Amino acid sequence: MPSLTQAEKAQRFLSLHHGPKILLLPNAWDVASACIFEDAGFPAVATSSAGVANSLGYPDGQKISRGEMLEVVSRIARALSVPVTADMEAGYGTTPDEMAETARLVIEAGAVGLNLEDSVSEGSDKLCDIPLQQEKIRAMVEMGKKLGVPLVINARTDIYLEEIGEPASRVEATAKRLNAYREAGASSLFAPGPKDAPTIEKLIRAVHGPLNILALKGGPSARELEKLGVARVSIGSGPMRASMGLTSRLAKHLRDVGTFDPMFEGQMTYIDANRLFERH
Amino acid sequence: MPSLTQAEKAQRFLSLHHGPKILLLPNAWDVASACIFEDAGFPAVATSSAGVANSLGYPDGQKISRGEMLEVVSRIARALSVPVTADMEAGYGTTPDEMAETARLVIEAGAVGLNLEDSVSEGSDKLCDIPLQQEKIRAMVEMGKKLGVPLVINARTDIYLEEIGEPASRVEATAKRLNAYREAGASSLFAPGPKDAPTIEKLIRAVHGPLNILALKGGPSARELEKLGVARVSIGSGPMRASMGLTSRLAKHLRDVGTFDPMFEGQMTYIDANRLFERH
Repeated sequence: MPSLTQAEKAQRFLSLHHGPKILLLPNAWDVASACIFEDAGFPAVATSSAGVANSLGYPDGQKISRGEMLEVVSRIARALSVPVTADMEAGYGTTPDEMAETARLVIEAGAVGLNLEDSVSEGSDKLCDIPLQQEKIRAMVEMGKKLGVPLVINARTDIYLEEIGEPASRVEATAKRLNAYREAGASSLFAPGPKDAPTIEKLIRAVHGPLNILALKGGPSARELEKLGVARVSIGSGPMRASMGLTSRLAKHLRDVGTFDPMFEGQMTYIDANRLFERH
Repeated sequence: MPSLTQAEKAQRFLSLHHGPKILLLPNAWDVASACIFEDAGFPAVATSSAGVANSLGYPDGQKISRGEMLEVVSRIARALSVPVTADMEAGYGTTPDEMAETARLVIEAGAVGLNLEDSVSEGSDKLCDIPLQQEKIRAMVEMGKKLGVPLVINARTDIYLEEIGEPASRVEATAKRLNAYREAGASSLFAPGPKDAPTIEKLIRAVHGPLNILALKGGPSARELEKLGVARVSIGSGPMRASMGLTSRLAKHLRDVGTFDPMFEGQMTYIDANRLFERH
């Protein structure tokens, strides 16, 4: 869809949260992976903050700067025709004004959506106070309106990831936060962590808006999540880490065995790779 | 070796071309792959021009700018302790002065070696005239001396890749060019293309300097190349394209099957990935 304006892409992306099918969102970490996902037919592509950070040599968790993260987002958004949404971690700031600036830069980079998490710092069991997190979301929504791009904000709560509170209290705590974020203008509500169908069903009933679930090992398939009523599923940094796992195995094979055939097995040919990037 | 100066790294890298063992050089395309290769114990890491270009969304063949290529080289060189050598294609210019500037920028990026090919343009059967290619190499060597970093120039001829001249004439044509490049100051002589032992043996005898061979499907293993007398073997963009092949298969599986387990098979864990980048 090369003729869509950025505002139209945002609307198109939003509508994918309300269609008959679940929105299965692959997370890219460089332009190559983003082009591969678009070519496979996904109607939108997300970035993985962990994947982008790792690719540039940083651990996950806002160790990368906002500028470096957005440079990758911008390269990806320029290369693709489908809508792109950016994982912006906790927004690279603490105040609503800083969130507005992050939203402005995301739009400038060509993306039409962003993820904003409520963790205060990595591994901390403290989440941002709900009223402040709402203000942050409102500031981002306002910036989108101001710039004429209805930014699709995917508000994430880390109740499950940070294991906050008693397990039995987490559905309610998650719903409380996500519903507050929805009220502040978030278009999509992200609860990464739960992977059993009964918990996800409870969340679906308690959350008043499109629910986003993270794909997890041993968790339900995309079709099962769709049946449960999940609106969006993110695959996260899995493919990037599968890629790093493969590179690590190839490196050890080269070092220990010294034959080259494994790196040719199942590889994208030189010609196909060049064709892919000539198209984009 | 975090305490080595850049000049010492250059000397160390040069000495690896003259040791008892073949120098097996893995080619990285981003900081993640470079860190994985260093962690596997390789004594030096190269970049893959095709891999870096693809990762940023460009086809191979100088479609990427010199600045973008060097930004990746610089990130990789900053993250690693071992010597880094940069694939600079045809040097991103046509004159000896432009080559001197490319050499200066490579050193500024923290690398201690570079690849320079003699193709005039992609897919052309015309190579740079030998005297001009010698002048280019001399300009790069001089810049290294001026900056106090004895740059390890890996001079490549594309006689085989571009299939220039009758097959029977190629050993001689390759040796003529590589010996001229050696005379101009190249430390390593790169003849990508041949993969049968008899041809490689003939090249070894005809070329007066350390010979670099490209790892190819069905070609000799590192040990076989070492026995033949090859000084250096480059693995090229194989691991990056293996990675893109894997991403493409994962994308199709997600699209067609919608289960998530394949991306968890053999992946680097989130914790191991973070640890890897905390160390670098």
